[in-house]
Amino acid sequence: MKILVINSGSSSLKYKLFDMTRARVICSGLAERIGDKGACLAHTLNPGTESEKKIRMTRALESHTQAIEMVARLLMEGDNPLVSSPEDLTAIGHRVAQGGETFKENCIVDDVVIRGIRENIVLAPLHNPANLAGIQAAIERFPSVPSVAVFDTQFSKDLPDYAFRYALPEAFYKTHKVRRYGFHGTSHRFVTRQLAGLMDKPLARLNNIVCHLGNGSSVTAVQGGICRETSMGMTPTAGLIMGTRCGDIDPSLPCYLAKSMNQSVEGVQNILDRESGFAGICGMGDMRDIHKAIATGDDRARLAFEMLCHGIKKYIGAYFAVLGRLDAIAFTAGIGENDAAVRAKSLEGLEPMGIVLDSRANAATRGKSGLISTKYSPVQVWVIPTNEELEIANACKALVAS
Amino acid sequence: MKILVINSGSSSLKYKLFDMTRARVICSGLAERIGDKGACLAHTLNPGTESEKKIRMTRALESHTQAIEMVARLLMEGDNPLVSSPEDLTAIGHRVAQGGETFKENCIVDDVVIRGIRENIVLAPLHNPANLAGIQAAIERFPSVPSVAVFDTQFSKDLPDYAFRYALPEAFYKTHKVRRYGFHGTSHRFVTRQLAGLMDKPLARLNNIVCHLGNGSSVTAVQGGICRETSMGMTPTAGLIMGTRCGDIDPSLPCYLAKSMNQSVEGVQNILDRESGFAGICGMGDMRDIHKAIATGDDRARLAFEMLCHGIKKYIGAYFAVLGRLDAIAFTAGIGENDAAVRAKSLEGLEPMGIVLDSRANAATRGKSGLISTKYSPVQVWVIPTNEELEIANACKALVAS
Repeated sequence: MKILVINSGSSSLKYKLFDMTRARVICSGLAERIGDKGACLAHTLNPGTESEKKIRMTRALESHTQAIEMVARLLMEGDNPLVSSPEDLTAIGHRVAQGGETFKENCIVDDVVIRGIRENIVLAPLHNPANLAGIQAAIERFPSVPSVAVFDTQFSKDLPDYAFRYALPEAFYKTHKVRRYGFHGTSHRFVTRQLAGLMDKPLARLNNIVCHLGNGSSVTAVQGGICRETSMGMTPTAGLIMGTRCGDIDPSLPCYLAKSMNQSVEGVQNILDRESGFAGICGMGDMRDIHKAIATGDDRARLAFEMLCHGIKKYIGAYFAVLGRLDAIAFTAGIGENDAAVRAKSLEGLEPMGIVLDSRANAATRGKSGLISTKYSPVQVWVIPTNEELEIANACKALVAS
Repeated sequence: MKILVINSGSSSLKYKLFDMTRARVICSGLAERIGDKGACLAHTLNPGTESEKKIRMTRALESHTQAIEMVARLLMEGDNPLVSSPEDLTAIGHRVAQGGETFKENCIVDDVVIRGIRENIVLAPLHNPANLAGIQAAIERFPSVPSVAVFDTQFSKDLPDYAFRYALPEAFYKTHKVRRYGFHGTSHRFVTRQLAGLMDKPLARLNNIVCHLGNGSSVTAVQGGICRETSMGMTPTAGLIMGTRCGDIDPSLPCYLAKSMNQSVEGVQNILDRESGFAGICGMGDMRDIHKAIATGDDRARLAFEMLCHGIKKYIGAYFAVLGRLDAIAFTAGIGENDAAVRAKSLEGLEPMGIVLDSRANAATRGKSGLISTKYSPVQVWVIPTNEELEIANACKALVAS
């Protein structure tokens, strides 16, 4: 069983072809600068194996349709094609950023689904149109293969109303769809399931927190596999401090900034999303650069690092309270998988809450799964690499099989 | 030793005269609708005692100066005046909303202090001018009596930078004073000191959380008497859901509302402060009305109640993590002192964190100090009525004596 997973951005298209039977990646790639003259496509065969082979092509890709056509050729041409015919593809899975309240479940794409994704563009004006472009290009090129929409908001669909509503006039929710949606759902779900497996505990009896810390970061509280709270909100600007996104701030601040700086609301929004976060605090958006700067005594870098860790600590405490009983915390994504210093600082002093880090195991665990709490720690702490594409492929498999 | 405490709003002036030697309130009162034709002043002698006596006067009060003149007459006229001469007043204490970074300590008012309060008007455009009007009227009428400014932001002056900074471009902090300040400081300090006394524990060794739940609400994490975190931010709009204030929301929302509703930033700010909170969710701003509505099956009232309790629970968890070790939680102010249902729901399910409510003691404690956790609860839970005026008087006493 082969499943192609596509994540299409406004000018990019990422893909990964899975052999689900043998649970391996056949190939992966990224087309960039779509719509631009200098478009290029990087294709990798057997990624991460000894027989890995990279191909890089530069050519004009005017649209997502042309990018998909190029991918199709790479998959289907040659003497031993990776995909022998369209029928050899069981499904094509698409990451879709925002399902709104329209989509409580992932689904096979038809005209109604396309209309639904389009209706939610208002809530994800940058992402949903790009995701739609990828879906439509795939349907055009592979009309016989089911396309599946996997929503980044799906995992948090079960938030109780007192967690998803904002304390704004009711009409904003009813008319303008203003509520907490939550994002990174495929990652939080994947890591939660992996965690249950690693702990050898039935998912239904597991209470856990997932800290997805990457370029964008979010934290979820998960009870028996069901998401009960999440730090991102109506938009991915909310929650923890991120590379260039501000995370949680005083609700009066955007209006204050607009007035005191004589900025338009678009200008303020741009600052919150692109000039804030680590970059706003210390001029660097990447935690690796921040660590290097801290080593040279850069106090603004120290502040960015501590703001992240303080935020993570507060979310862990808050979500511990939401769950009541906590079995485990999992760290994932770029920072979560690789940054032992962030993990250590975030959990510092939480021993009275039953969270006891094993500092050696923590320091030794980078980019691989591992238990990093001591064996006496009532709450287990794990590092678990995320795999959103595999989770999307799994969602496709489940949907197409049913 | 007599100390007069004044809390002046834009069109009101509240006062309380303390006999500090005998620790009692000699009189208290409230002038309302200052600047309006229908101004009135309600004056109470020996409030809350058997010899309580109320006087109510309606007359034009054109300014805070006229209101202070009226108070001066009530205090100093007659055969047995409450205050025999201005020298009989040791100090006049004024609540000042926003000290910004200018005032790390409360202080005796002089020209420099007045300038400092004026400089911070930008951060508290409604409150600081009103507070200044009261201060200036008092200095005019009682030039020989020291006026003391007690800042609502003073208690949270020791927040570490990673707790008070927002992840916005650094210039906003350096140039525009954008940071978390925190409010309700006199209440949080008063309750924390009372708590140490009731627990018979040295303040320096006490780690506690105070939930000040009233018309405005805020939560603080206090370590050895020093405030380490607070839920209000640069403005009192942040934190918990309140009567008409939204509390924490997605940082993108103000811009989204301004655009999607074609509102000015002033219009949006007005919605966040005056049309949101409980009122936005269920049309009622008072928790007592909300309880009555819940009893009749009103689901929007149920939602407002649950949003408050969910928020309190998350702050308690977050601040438990910030403190590492938690000795006690104290509930205060209108809702905190009187609403057993809010207290019970907020702490529901927190037994694994060592917080075990005594449901009978909780139900029986209204508007008075009392322990409401079981004797086996590792974290003690208390109800402690706040007394901001007394705390201001105490701050005056300490300053004038030194």
